[in-house]
Amino acid sequence: MSFKAPVEQIDFILTHIVPFAELARTDRFADATPETARAILAEAGKLAQNVLAPLNRAGDTHPARLENGVLRSSPGFIEGFRAIAEGGWVGVSADPDHGGMGLPQALNMAVSEMMSGACLALQLNPLLTQGQIEALEHHASDALKALYLPKLISGEWSGTMNLTEPGAGSDVGALVTRAEPADDGSYRLTGQKIYITWGDSDVTSNVCHLVLARLPGAPRGTRGISLFMVPKFLPDDQGNPGIANDLKVVSLEEKLGIHGSPTCVMSYDGAVGWLVGEENKGMAAMFTMMNVARLGVGMQGVGVAEAALQAAVRYAVDRDQMGPIIGHPDVRRMLGTARAEVFAARAIGLACATAIDLSRATDDPDQAARAAFLTPIAKAYGTDLGIRVADMGVQVHGGMGYVEETGAAQYLRDVRITSIYEGTNGIQAMDLVGRKLSDGGEAAMRLLDEVLDGAKAAQGAHPELAHQLWQAAETLREATQTLLDRDMADRFAGAVPYLTAFARVLGGHYHLRAALAGGASHQALARVFMARVLPHHAGDLAEALAGANDLTGIDDAALAGDFAA
Amino acid sequence: MSFKAPVEQIDFILTHIVPFAELARTDRFADATPETARAILAEAGKLAQNVLAPLNRAGDTHPARLENGVLRSSPGFIEGFRAIAEGGWVGVSADPDHGGMGLPQALNMAVSEMMSGACLALQLNPLLTQGQIEALEHHASDALKALYLPKLISGEWSGTMNLTEPGAGSDVGALVTRAEPADDGSYRLTGQKIYITWGDSDVTSNVCHLVLARLPGAPRGTRGISLFMVPKFLPDDQGNPGIANDLKVVSLEEKLGIHGSPTCVMSYDGAVGWLVGEENKGMAAMFTMMNVARLGVGMQGVGVAEAALQAAVRYAVDRDQMGPIIGHPDVRRMLGTARAEVFAARAIGLACATAIDLSRATDDPDQAARAAFLTPIAKAYGTDLGIRVADMGVQVHGGMGYVEETGAAQYLRDVRITSIYEGTNGIQAMDLVGRKLSDGGEAAMRLLDEVLDGAKAAQGAHPELAHQLWQAAETLREATQTLLDRDMADRFAGAVPYLTAFARVLGGHYHLRAALAGGASHQALARVFMARVLPHHAGDLAEALAGANDLTGIDDAALAGDFAA
Repeated sequence: MSFKAPVEQIDFILTHIVPFAELARTDRFADATPETARAILAEAGKLAQNVLAPLNRAGDTHPARLENGVLRSSPGFIEGFRAIAEGGWVGVSADPDHGGMGLPQALNMAVSEMMSGACLALQLNPLLTQGQIEALEHHASDALKALYLPKLISGEWSGTMNLTEPGAGSDVGALVTRAEPADDGSYRLTGQKIYITWGDSDVTSNVCHLVLARLPGAPRGTRGISLFMVPKFLPDDQGNPGIANDLKVVSLEEKLGIHGSPTCVMSYDGAVGWLVGEENKGMAAMFTMMNVARLGVGMQGVGVAEAALQAAVRYAVDRDQMGPIIGHPDVRRMLGTARAEVFAARAIGLACATAIDLSRATDDPDQAARAAFLTPIAKAYGTDLGIRVADMGVQVHGGMGYVEETGAAQYLRDVRITSIYEGTNGIQAMDLVGRKLSDGGEAAMRLLDEVLDGAKAAQGAHPELAHQLWQAAETLREATQTLLDRDMADRFAGAVPYLTAFARVLGGHYHLRAALAGGASHQALARVFMARVLPHHAGDLAEALAGANDLTGIDDAALAGDFAA
Repeated sequence: MSFKAPVEQIDFILTHIVPFAELARTDRFADATPETARAILAEAGKLAQNVLAPLNRAGDTHPARLENGVLRSSPGFIEGFRAIAEGGWVGVSADPDHGGMGLPQALNMAVSEMMSGACLALQLNPLLTQGQIEALEHHASDALKALYLPKLISGEWSGTMNLTEPGAGSDVGALVTRAEPADDGSYRLTGQKIYITWGDSDVTSNVCHLVLARLPGAPRGTRGISLFMVPKFLPDDQGNPGIANDLKVVSLEEKLGIHGSPTCVMSYDGAVGWLVGEENKGMAAMFTMMNVARLGVGMQGVGVAEAALQAAVRYAVDRDQMGPIIGHPDVRRMLGTARAEVFAARAIGLACATAIDLSRATDDPDQAARAAFLTPIAKAYGTDLGIRVADMGVQVHGGMGYVEETGAAQYLRDVRITSIYEGTNGIQAMDLVGRKLSDGGEAAMRLLDEVLDGAKAAQGAHPELAHQLWQAAETLREATQTLLDRDMADRFAGAVPYLTAFARVLGGHYHLRAALAGGASHQALARVFMARVLPHHAGDLAEALAGANDLTGIDDAALAGDFAA
């Protein structure tokens, strides 16, 4: 499908909105100069728009399938993935010692966003592989690193994440897959895993599964979970794929979207695996993998939003109903609001990525706290927005949007998963109001101070915009204080609207910066955001502070429609 | 799919929330006693949940198809439609002189809602047929009425609405299908129509197309459009289907959802037709058809919302992740908010239907104005809600919601069309702030007075709820006054959020009534609505009053992502 990689939009944010330039002043990212960044973005943009975007439609109409137990990916996906691998795009942020580029996550996330907008189903493969690389870099033995990292980073092999079981979704601690120690230091894994994205692949020569399982006698719950590397083919003496491991793909799910991404039910039947990290500390290792993947999924939302919005604008320019419909105020409202929110979500995601990079390059705990606070916001707001914009794209297309051939509906079907996987957006929001406020609100308040300072500094140049943002940020600060005094049930009952309100205020903050740094278009877009998006924070915060009593006051029967009580 | 027809919920609204009881005191609807209403609802409910709901899944997995030019509907649809027809459900509100039940639209809409929740794809057939019956009753010659109405009302034949052409969607006036007068008083129609729902059918023995076309020399635009009855088979002397007319189904659209409802591209190649109503007055006749259909589509949204919500509640009761997830505050928030909004949307729809009935039974222009004002609100809010609740249903199901076998995704795919067809929700909102405020806001203010009176009367029993509603209604009144002074471009730029705000306030009004008339569950639900839904009216109204300047201030290139300007 036609897609223009948003290279300039991303470059503007890295240059003017987030402190990306600080990275090149650190030892770790000294190479990440603005010039390098631009070159990287331009190259990745070409790949996304010229190579990957043309594969997107066939990935929907010709789903990945199992043929006598062998996976066959969608037409063109093998070549598409080779292009990703050969460009080095799997390893943008991976360790140079194992073949990675060693560049900041901010660039990696920007590249990921563009690839997601072009072809979400295929981009899931490198996204998961990157998560595995992160987990191995931080937790694996040197022997495992030496064997697996070069292959994963080069894209010869790919990686998966095996958490979920039929009885263990958001409650990971309920999983029952077993790992028995063998004599040679390896383990034998037995159990079933579901929702394994790219659980098999013909685009790589081996598939490396990171599998959560329980050792004999392990404690219950999440404290008794260990992480194992379980490859599809056991590496031979030369480190090449050797004999087949005792695992198989039982079936593929028939899904609403991302048909080109095989979602596998996996069976492990005494499969050989190696421990990654310490016994019973698998959750920590898995969180390393998930943290970057969470932000990556947020950027998937942004990427699909960008693509769906571009398609809607193209249609609205071409479609003539008493003049091109892009001139109709209501259509323009839909497109303008979407464009303003895409900017906001992208800025939040890249701000989060930059905080991750700064914390890694400088060991600054404030940056680490900022990254931790922004991650659930970037994930949930980015994916909610992706769904909302794709839905808007269908609406702008009118009846044509409901017909599959335009592709507008595919964006909606594809992106719909992003608010569910890598922790549902509800889980993200609970993480935000729970763990991420457990510092007494310090990280939140530091962000809000930055917003308020920004509003103060912009008073002269953009008095109205600055005032609107100031008010919203003050309201959010008060709401945050109130929430800190509440118990967890009350916080959880308003977690999602609180997260959304925070995202809107941050979005306003970055728009105000853009109005100061950018031209007339950025100022116009900031006005749209302040007039049409920011005002909804009031309703969100009212809901955020509503507490849980009204919800516990309804019985289950009434929720089901029986009001006899 | 499992579905419990919401008979008691509807009965509660007809008994306590809307002035349905007044209808039995009119001559026209003297038969529509509460007892009759309950009997009708119970019967229709049984049909919906026992006969139609079990067809819904196959209607998705086995789409209607063309076999050598002949339509084959989904498995069981022929029997399902026969059950609808034999129960008399096509003609609930149709003229008894031609075999209808002559009952109020309030009952017809309630029945429609239940059938839509059970099987949207099949229910579209009687919905369209009902619209055609309305148009013929009001505009057709006695000869046409005598020939077609009994067959349509009995469900022997079905009806379609042919507006859209490739170049004429929302801009109906752009259509080019031609009608040439023949010697015998009939016409010959030539042209192509698209998006024709149930444009062919094997569930009825004839398909009657109402087709908009232009006579030779007709004025341009909507003033030059006439309406024609063009049957698939020309009736013979006995009024039975005779020789085939010169029309055909060219192809079926491949759609996001409602796969069981064939969406046809129709070709008319000199097909025989008869004029309905006066020459060049086709739009008026079509509006008769569309008005009731618009409300019917709003009820489709409510019906699917009910079904999707029931499925989500069932799943949340069964799914155990550290306890049944229905106990988790965030899941309960999603379900509780949805239940509160379903009540609101159903009440708005039935209030609209009752106003239509009262206006017809009493010729009261105030009731007619109320019906006209409520119709776009009922259509847009009901369908937006249907989409939102179905989307929520997917989210509550987690990963299972993205897998097609649970059916959660089908509700979302099916209901997604409802905000597009019968006039997009943007068109509805423009109708509201344009034509429906052209009385200087009289109908709007009369409704708001009722809301404010209701809040006043409830001050003693429910002071907090009454206060919240009062404030929201006052804010809406002020916003309405402001809007009345604005030009159309400014109104249109905020039309959709204005409509939503109005719906929320009306929803609060009906919830307050329910809190007074109902038990503890209704009071609990009213609290949820006031705490979590009503507060969002503030953001909506800010957006509603934002005017069009911010939108015209962005150029098209920036909307597409190019900020060079």
